[in-house]
Amino acid sequence: MARLLILNGPNLNLLGSREPAIYGGSSFEEFLSDLRSEFAGHSIEHVQTNIEGEMVDAIQKADGAVDAVVMNAGGYSHTSVALHDAVSAVRVPVIEVHISNLLSREAFRHESLTGAACVGTIMGLGLDGYRLAILHVLRRLS
Amino acid sequence: MARLLILNGPNLNLLGSREPAIYGGSSFEEFLSDLRSEFAGHSIEHVQTNIEGEMVDAIQKADGAVDAVVMNAGGYSHTSVALHDAVSAVRVPVIEVHISNLLSREAFRHESLTGAACVGTIMGLGLDGYRLAILHVLRRLS
Amino acid sequence: MARLLILNGPNLNLLGSREPAIYGGSSFEEFLSDLRSEFAGHSIEHVQTNIEGEMVDAIQKADGAVDAVVMNAGGYSHTSVALHDAVSAVRVPVIEVHISNLLSREAFRHESLTGAACVGTIMGLGLDGYRLAILHVLRRLS
Amino acid sequence: MARLLILNGPNLNLLGSREPAIYGGSSFEEFLSDLRSEFAGHSIEHVQTNIEGEMVDAIQKADGAVDAVVMNAGGYSHTSVALHDAVSAVRVPVIEVHISNLLSREAFRHESLTGAACVGTIMGLGLDGYRLAILHVLRRLS
Amino acid sequence: MARLLILNGPNLNLLGSREPAIYGGSSFEEFLSDLRSEFAGHSIEHVQTNIEGEMVDAIQKADGAVDAVVMNAGGYSHTSVALHDAVSAVRVPVIEVHISNLLSREAFRHESLTGAACVGTIMGLGLDGYRLAILHVLRRLS
Amino acid sequence: MARLLILNGPNLNLLGSREPAIYGGSSFEEFLSDLRSEFAGHSIEHVQTNIEGEMVDAIQKADGAVDAVVMNAGGYSHTSVALHDAVSAVRVPVIEVHISNLLSREAFRHESLTGAACVGTIMGLGLDGYRLAILHVLRRLS
Amino acid sequence: MARLLILNGPNLNLLGSREPAIYGGSSFEEFLSDLRSEFAGHSIEHVQTNIEGEMVDAIQKADGAVDAVVMNAGGYSHTSVALHDAVSAVRVPVIEVHISNLLSREAFRHESLTGAACVGTIMGLGLDGYRLAILHVLRRLS
Amino acid sequence: MARLLILNGPNLNLLGSREPAIYGGSSFEEFLSDLRSEFAGHSIEHVQTNIEGEMVDAIQKADGAVDAVVMNAGGYSHTSVALHDAVSAVRVPVIEVHISNLLSREAFRHESLTGAACVGTIMGLGLDGYRLAILHVLRRLS
Amino acid sequence: MARLLILNGPNLNLLGSREPAIYGGSSFEEFLSDLRSEFAGHSIEHVQTNIEGEMVDAIQKADGAVDAVVMNAGGYSHTSVALHDAVSAVRVPVIEVHISNLLSREAFRHESLTGAACVGTIMGLGLDGYRLAILHVLRRLS
Amino acid sequence: MARLLILNGPNLNLLGSREPAIYGGSSFEEFLSDLRSEFAGHSIEHVQTNIEGEMVDAIQKADGAVDAVVMNAGGYSHTSVALHDAVSAVRVPVIEVHISNLLSREAFRHESLTGAACVGTIMGLGLDGYRLAILHVLRRLS
Amino acid sequence: MARLLILNGPNLNLLGSREPAIYGGSSFEEFLSDLRSEFAGHSIEHVQTNIEGEMVDAIQKADGAVDAVVMNAGGYSHTSVALHDAVSAVRVPVIEVHISNLLSREAFRHESLTGAACVGTIMGLGLDGYRLAILHVLRRLS
Amino acid sequence: MARLLILNGPNLNLLGSREPAIYGGSSFEEFLSDLRSEFAGHSIEHVQTNIEGEMVDAIQKADGAVDAVVMNAGGYSHTSVALHDAVSAVRVPVIEVHISNLLSREAFRHESLTGAACVGTIMGLGLDGYRLAILHVLRRLS
Repeated sequence: MARLLILNGPNLNLLGSREPAIYGGSSFEEFLSDLRSEFAGHSIEHVQTNIEGEMVDAIQKADGAVDAVVMNAGGYSHTSVALHDAVSAVRVPVIEVHISNLLSREAFRHESLTGAACVGTIMGLGLDGYRLAILHVLRRLS
Repeated sequence: MARLLILNGPNLNLLGSREPAIYGGSSFEEFLSDLRSEFAGHSIEHVQTNIEGEMVDAIQKADGAVDAVVMNAGGYSHTSVALHDAVSAVRVPVIEVHISNLLSREAFRHESLTGAACVGTIMGLGLDGYRLAILHVLRRLS
Repeated sequence: MARLLILNGPNLNLLGSREPAIYGGSSFEEFLSDLRSEFAGHSIEHVQTNIEGEMVDAIQKADGAVDAVVMNAGGYSHTSVALHDAVSAVRVPVIEVHISNLLSREAFRHESLTGAACVGTIMGLGLDGYRLAILHVLRRLS
Repeated sequence: MARLLILNGPNLNLLGSREPAIYGGSSFEEFLSDLRSEFAGHSIEHVQTNIEGEMVDAIQKADGAVDAVVMNAGGYSHTSVALHDAVSAVRVPVIEVHISNLLSREAFRHESLTGAACVGTIMGLGLDGYRLAILHVLRRLS
Repeated sequence: MARLLILNGPNLNLLGSREPAIYGGSSFEEFLSDLRSEFAGHSIEHVQTNIEGEMVDAIQKADGAVDAVVMNAGGYSHTSVALHDAVSAVRVPVIEVHISNLLSREAFRHESLTGAACVGTIMGLGLDGYRLAILHVLRRLS
Repeated sequence: MARLLILNGPNLNLLGSREPAIYGGSSFEEFLSDLRSEFAGHSIEHVQTNIEGEMVDAIQKADGAVDAVVMNAGGYSHTSVALHDAVSAVRVPVIEVHISNLLSREAFRHESLTGAACVGTIMGLGLDGYRLAILHVLRRLS
Repeated sequence: MARLLILNGPNLNLLGSREPAIYGGSSFEEFLSDLRSEFAGHSIEHVQTNIEGEMVDAIQKADGAVDAVVMNAGGYSHTSVALHDAVSAVRVPVIEVHISNLLSREAFRHESLTGAACVGTIMGLGLDGYRLAILHVLRRLS
Repeated sequence: MARLLILNGPNLNLLGSREPAIYGGSSFEEFLSDLRSEFAGHSIEHVQTNIEGEMVDAIQKADGAVDAVVMNAGGYSHTSVALHDAVSAVRVPVIEVHISNLLSREAFRHESLTGAACVGTIMGLGLDGYRLAILHVLRRLS
Repeated sequence: MARLLILNGPNLNLLGSREPAIYGGSSFEEFLSDLRSEFAGHSIEHVQTNIEGEMVDAIQKADGAVDAVVMNAGGYSHTSVALHDAVSAVRVPVIEVHISNLLSREAFRHESLTGAACVGTIMGLGLDGYRLAILHVLRRLS
Repeated sequence: MARLLILNGPNLNLLGSREPAIYGGSSFEEFLSDLRSEFAGHSIEHVQTNIEGEMVDAIQKADGAVDAVVMNAGGYSHTSVALHDAVSAVRVPVIEVHISNLLSREAFRHESLTGAACVGTIMGLGLDGYRLAILHVLRRLS
Repeated sequence: MARLLILNGPNLNLLGSREPAIYGGSSFEEFLSDLRSEFAGHSIEHVQTNIEGEMVDAIQKADGAVDAVVMNAGGYSHTSVALHDAVSAVRVPVIEVHISNLLSREAFRHESLTGAACVGTIMGLGLDGYRLAILHVLRRLS
Repeated sequence: MARLLILNGPNLNLLGSREPAIYGGSSFEEFLSDLRSEFAGHSIEHVQTNIEGEMVDAIQKADGAVDAVVMNAGGYSHTSVALHDAVSAVRVPVIEVHISNLLSREAFRHESLTGAACVGTIMGLGLDGYRLAILHVLRRLS
């Protein structure tokens, strides 16, 4: 049994209502419920916060408490040295997910500072990115 | 009757004491009281926070609750993708105000990332910028 | 009674026909007539020119002749050192207005060189920006 | 039954011998064999070439012939406008995979030009990225 | 009688099916047939390849064999030092053609490295650019 | 019968005497006379001015009055937002011509801001560029 | 007796466990205890937070309450205009400390925005930097 | 007897009233009168205009009519390709003068585009720069 | 006896005819014949191709087959990540040679991406650079 | 007993007379005398030179001769690769001191190339920075 | 009687033999002799050195000893913070002279760091620049 | 018999003790002795200095005195306009040598300013680069 944390950053609580053309029309809670069904037997904790420093807190707390973190740092991905440093400082592996393809959006979204400290990144594959990240973690752990 | 939110970001609670040559000598509370007198018959809520993510929270909560937001994101204007995304994600119109003329200050203040997601910007006109923003909102609503 | 000059730069004579999605559908003359009604008792002169150096001339002549200038330098805002210097050289206060939100358009419109020499800027609020600028001037003068 | 093309670019034929610390120690052929077992019932074609223009050819030929392409453009990812244009020009969805986390390597690998034309990107998850891309395609198709 | 080579680079074989809003809806073969009718009495050879180095080969072979080359290097225009050098190394005049107006597309298409080595450039005039290039060559030769 | 305007910008009145190695040795008037002979049956108006704003004026006046404009904005091509905006604001098609190949000259001539608003550009083909632009316009109109 | 505040930013609570090769192996609490012994007779308050805005709060509260602040803003040093502005807005002197030598790490750590508003900076001298900052403050105060 | 033209650009008509700390307190007319006394026996024509294109006109007209031009292009120095080209196109030598030391002012004044086409530059020596330029011309001519 | 590969990239087949002022007047074949005489007793294979990916192929095949590679990647030196990666991926030492001094030519030739992966570089010494590279290899091997 | 070298670079011999607002009003000799009193029992050598290469010499000679170097490289800090290399090449620890806060001065002083090779930096704390550097060295040595 | 120092930097001892097309064909000694004749009654000291730090020394020694310095810092003009600081630190006025027009040479010569600290600059007027600088100093002193 | 000067710049006197992983473990004197044996019959002078201006002196003195210079300017290679100018000003050919491969080290070492003025460069081949440079010179001279 794997213990997982999904850590969502700013504005991801708006999923389903925010720019559906980019982010899709279902809320994260609906999606999370499907995910838990698909990965029954594993624990999937979910934390969402709009505050950069609370994401740092969550990464620090995850260390030792879960087997892996799937993180979507939203707008903080591009500028947060603090979050980059938190991910570098812990031993728990972190996988970055972005719902949209950042490379085809504004230039200020093209590079991820937090992603440089993560194991890897999945982006542009919609909410399915979270599922794939978990599948990867499970294979890593096995 | 219009419902308005004035959302002030970091260090705007210091108004009146902070660098009076740039920001003027009266506190925001004194100014707000005058503003409420001038716009009696309308509701003007005021939120000030030094925390970027709480500004994101406030923008999200304003959606549907007020008719317009007048926002001074202070130092977060230049770097906050999260706040840019929050403003883009909501339907409530947001007008950016800056007390000083950012174009005649340090280069890192010349461009506003949050302003790109707002309806427009008023800057350099001192506290009067807040009043003008409200006057614009009232004309928009009428 | 205040004496005001509205100084419009290149292509603003096309207002009403030029890209109505960005600039709106009414001509500046119609708008000016409304403005003069609203501010009856004040004089509002209007100068429009497509020539950068004639804008410099107009700023120089305004000094001492009017109480304030409301200027929309159009495409010259981004490159004109000459106009920047003219505004710096005179004592009459100049307020910059842009009809559209330059921050959400092409990168070459993001920074205003002339705006750095003005008192402040109002942008993205449509033609209403001119009215707000006048309201600000009147409060300044009173 | 889904028809898939894995398109590998320059130096991926060296997998297993090339810089094992970055790329792992097993050859792509061994990995491909496992992949075909896991996805029995689907066809997985594999093309590897060191020539940029042959990758363009392969993308063009894939259009209409397969249901999706999983592409690792290697060193061409960062500079190939031609490959970017080929992916944009076809209707078949293309998913970009990178074995290593490009964001933690040299600066010239941080941005992918080809990735901007793809559906999305999976990187840093080793060879498992190919498997995840296929899992995503299969969900998309179902 | 003039001997001409039209040298088309990557993805120009997709003309007619690729992004018709940008590139138009007729194939290059149809267009070439019209061109040969219009310029009956002259020989117009046509080479298309997706491979950068084969374009270099073609330029080298054209030297001495034809009177002029009309080249559309597609995506290689922006990055190919090799093709730039090939055009500089030969005596046969080369005229660059682009179907779309590169200046109004993505920034990475704004400057042409190959164009700096050519006689000149025609762009944004659709397939008609090829015809104009030939008309220019014929006047040059006469 | 087509109505055409050739709009020449700064220093093009010096043609024939100015740097003949770059611009050729015949004056524009001599060339224009040949052009009118070649395109007898069409009207070709010619305006030359060294003043940026008068080019803006000419573009505005051309709208509705002629069928197309062939414009060589000379040194204003690289910096004039005002002229860019004028071309964008009118419905009459504008084709940019440069006598020399700007890509093989100083870096500050490599990108054309006005060209981004035009239909397309012909450069480096000498005075023949004007003739080709007219030939293109005539085909467009037919 | 001097009143001092040590204000530590993101991830400094991990000291002792985080990347010991860079940051050393003892926790900040152990170090703080030694510091208080060495500077018995002076009060040394300690605040650590991962939240940028709470650092702004702390700086504001320190004004008038302590004689000097020794601040390590961690990852916020490089991007926080808000913290820069808070330090500029208060009268209490702030000294910046960094444990590692930022100039020999990644380029994004080479410049400190917050340091520009502080009295000065001590970096690369390990935890001893905090002690040196206090020694400097005591001499300043005497 | 030498024939000289002093060509002054934008805002130089304000000399004496404009920012006296930078430009000094006497008007150009007073200075010119002294200059003509000092160089009695030579003709010194003076043209001032705020319009870039009229400066181009003046340079063109000076060719053949005077022996040298002393030009202060003011704010056009930094951006005018048109004026650069005019100076390059004529045979009459042009010497650039700036009253203030541009290198110690804003970054956008540090490089002169027009100066690159002139014989040389004298800057920072106040109005005396014009006198020195004339002295140089007279030595050149003798 | 040493086994050596000389790998020449795009346009080096034109040596002797291409820009003799830069590259000299003798063909590579003539030079190679002299080289084989000078280094009789060693095997010197020669491969020339204009295709980037074929250079990658050649580097891969050289691994294990020869003792060292002397490579002139021509125009691919400046942009080819693929070739950089091929050189990094093999164990055979590669020495970069350029006939001309790239530092005194256009800016886009100043930095070599492939050279960063090679043992070292010899440039500007004409064809003699190939001979020196071989002399170095022989000393290394002995 | 520790042996220390204070190595001062260009213009530090002017201390006390040079820009006292930035550098303070006492000469380095006066300060040095105080320093030697405070650290009686230790040897403090002092070298000042305006010549970059003599600073390189001094660093080389210090190796093995003293226990630590306190260096203020003045204007060479920002550009001297030679001094950076000297510090990297020796075993003796070097601590960089700057009297003023370079981050709040001109942009060309914001980054220190020599500081990247030193143990660490103390800046903005006036002459007290030298004392703190020595205190740090003494603790390191004990 | 004025006391003047001409301070010449690197390679100016080669005048007359070095690149005569740029620097002219007479040696500085010959020129200096003419200058002393022209300014008989004034003392003109001359120092030439190829060493940056010796230029710093000379500027420091000039302070109080001469009335003005005419300095040609040659290649150090573009990079020497040390020389910039020396000029800023002294009270004696320094005038920068360059023989050639740096703006029409390589980009790395376009901006002068030392010139930003001087009173002003004369460049491109050959050796006559030294004479003009002295004429300016004499007028300043009178 | 050829007369040669080896001119070594800053820190090359440390060879053998400085960072042996990069520069090797034998001193330059040992190496020089071997070199003189190998090239008996030729004179090889050796100058080493840490002072930029003394390198300029040495280059100037070499002109006419030796047949060629082999120069390793060390850290001055990247910034010294003075040394660049010295090499350009003399007739004696100068060949640049670097022991390590600068392209695979820090970015500030990637481009050589002095190398642009030399005949060519040999780098990354260790001390053998000096030998190869001499071999090249001897062939040039023969």
